Amino acid sequence: MDEILQLSAGVVRTNRTMNDGRTIRYYDTAGQKRSVEDQRPAEEQPGIGELRLDPLVNEWVAMAAHRQSRVFLPPKELCPLCPTTGDLLTEIPENDFEIVVFDNRSPSLRPPDGDFALPDLVGSDTDEGVAAGKCEVICFTADHGGDFKSLSPQRVRTLLEAWKDRTRELSQQPFIEHIAPFENRGEEIGVTLAHPHGQIYAYSFVPPRVSKMLAVAREHHQKTGRVLFDDVVARELRDGVRVIAKNDHWVAYTPYASRYPFEIHVVPLTPVADLAELSDAASDSFPAIAIEVMKRLDGVFGIDMAYIAAWHQAPVREGRDLLRLHWQITSVRRAPGKLKYLAGSESAMGAFIMDMKPEQSAGQLKDVKI
Amino acid sequence: MDEILQLSAGVVRTNRTMNDGRTIRYYDTAGQKRSVEDQRPAEEQPGIGELRLDPLVNEWVAMAAHRQSRVFLPPKELCPLCPTTGDLLTEIPENDFEIVVFDNRSPSLRPPDGDFALPDLVGSDTDEGVAAGKCEVICFTADHGGDFKSLSPQRVRTLLEAWKDRTRELSQQPFIEHIAPFENRGEEIGVTLAHPHGQIYAYSFVPPRVSKMLAVAREHHQKTGRVLFDDVVARELRDGVRVIAKNDHWVAYTPYASRYPFEIHVVPLTPVADLAELSDAASDSFPAIAIEVMKRLDGVFGIDMAYIAAWHQAPVREGRDLLRLHWQITSVRRAPGKLKYLAGSESAMGAFIMDMKPEQSAGQLKDVKI
Repeated sequence: MDEILQLSAGVVRTNRTMNDGRTIRYYDTAGQKRSVEDQRPAEEQPGIGELRLDPLVNEWVAMAAHRQSRVFLPPKELCPLCPTTGDLLTEIPENDFEIVVFDNRSPSLRPPDGDFALPDLVGSDTDEGVAAGKCEVICFTADHGGDFKSLSPQRVRTLLEAWKDRTRELSQQPFIEHIAPFENRGEEIGVTLAHPHGQIYAYSFVPPRVSKMLAVAREHHQKTGRVLFDDVVARELRDGVRVIAKNDHWVAYTPYASRYPFEIHVVPLTPVADLAELSDAASDSFPAIAIEVMKRLDGVFGIDMAYIAAWHQAPVREGRDLLRLHWQITSVRRAPGKLKYLAGSESAMGAFIMDMKPEQSAGQLKDVKI
Repeated sequence: MDEILQLSAGVVRTNRTMNDGRTIRYYDTAGQKRSVEDQRPAEEQPGIGELRLDPLVNEWVAMAAHRQSRVFLPPKELCPLCPTTGDLLTEIPENDFEIVVFDNRSPSLRPPDGDFALPDLVGSDTDEGVAAGKCEVICFTADHGGDFKSLSPQRVRTLLEAWKDRTRELSQQPFIEHIAPFENRGEEIGVTLAHPHGQIYAYSFVPPRVSKMLAVAREHHQKTGRVLFDDVVARELRDGVRVIAKNDHWVAYTPYASRYPFEIHVVPLTPVADLAELSDAASDSFPAIAIEVMKRLDGVFGIDMAYIAAWHQAPVREGRDLLRLHWQITSVRRAPGKLKYLAGSESAMGAFIMDMKPEQSAGQLKDVKI
């Protein structure tokens, strides 16, 4: 029943099926055999949610009512993302792992039964659709108290290989239009499980922010013949003052019009549409800059920063030549005891107000001794 | 030097100048004379900030670096929004007030010197502009521990008159394109002053969310000849299940595609573009429904809900016949110990995920005994 696949960088993927039918994928580099069975009783799977059109802005809102009762900040002894040991039966049947990706137990989006099509966007009377898509959880360390910056370069390379694999595979599903791997870190931003982990949201529609980026990039291309993101990166490299790290294949900078006290974009110097298109050379030099950036971020105030680290990719079926892969890290921490909140101006009007300039945050990030 | 103006509903506005040149406006209904001088030493005014174009989405981001050191959650004895009593010299020189509106001491946006024009939106090389606009603070009770739902109907009527007055006056400034009165309530969403108060942001550009609403409304009008918002309200009245309060001139509902656990739109039944266009009859029947809605919101869990209550108005110079006035109240409180956070999906991708349906929150709001 196991499906075993050889990936790049010496990574082997083993797929296994949980008792409730969900899939767990182990990404290993040391020849591990993954054969431990899920010992938990099978659990009924939640039904699929709804997509409702917000007619005022023509955007889909997903409604997943079953998520309201999901697990909320369990103590370490009950952590569902630790490996299974003794009596504690977790989401990961094995007693150790490098990287695992498994289907989310409380998914906001899930694969539809049969054919799937969204209703047309026709205004205030648009019917609801099903919340099609896929939500996966990615655990990148068995260490409950660990974090991204403490990973070994090899582990980050394996993590990248897992992200690439998920992007490739999910892109083949006919109901998936966009794939966003991201990590939320910190109770300050609502993380409900303390164990370090990321998520992968695969949407059945192009998300609103991506849709806007695509429209703007298309307009720029029509006017100039150039790809907007490439022009943005060229400007950041030319300005230089906001660049915080760089190697042969990647650059990291706090963007000119940052929206958060600490916002960092990590960008491959050879532009690609998505993770699956990254060359081996670019992939191999990602771990060093990724770990450096995360160390700089936590070093600014000497505390673990709350952040969202999200991969922006081109959608699966459109704008492949107009949008570029980049990793966007944003932190709402503006000082040790202070967060930036999205209140009236940002939330209701969409107008962001920054209390500090990105040249300042770039200076603070560059000053960190690592 | 005082400028005294008679408004509707028996409200008299008295303008006075603070020592640092800022204006404070008293809105009174009982013939008060406002003559107490600001006793504080004059303070240098912060310079104007920058507007930077986020080229990836063609949106302005305001940078107001001087705000980083603004007052943060002072104790009640040092509250700058209480009336001046004894040795505590506050923002309000008088020892009592009904409604006051004064220029924000740490404004994100401020009036420009001389002529103002934004740079053209030309992509990744757009120069920064000045953060023109105006930020005002509106205090609606001298009671430090009070809140909106505890206001008398007469006080809410005076508050509405103040909002209308500010909208009318700010609309006459050539550098103002959009006016958004809002209230942020609750430390959970970042309020830095506990004393109940609202703000007025007057932007020199049409904010991104309003701009999107206008584009969608324009498309709908071209297709159907109808105003989108009117169609949305008609659908809510027809569905009925999400209506939580109604009187002769207003309706309040949790919208079909709500984005927050509790989201309420309060809408005049005779559509208007902005507050200044509200009839006396509609104005007079606003206090009852406004207070009822706020009581229902705080009644759901029996605790003071964190919320953002924002007036959406048509911009000053465009879309006046396409966008409609409405009051949008959103709360991130999804249960007594739980908040909804905008994390990876909402923040990075703009895709909102709801854990409960608005039919459920409407039911909870309607069940509150008031």
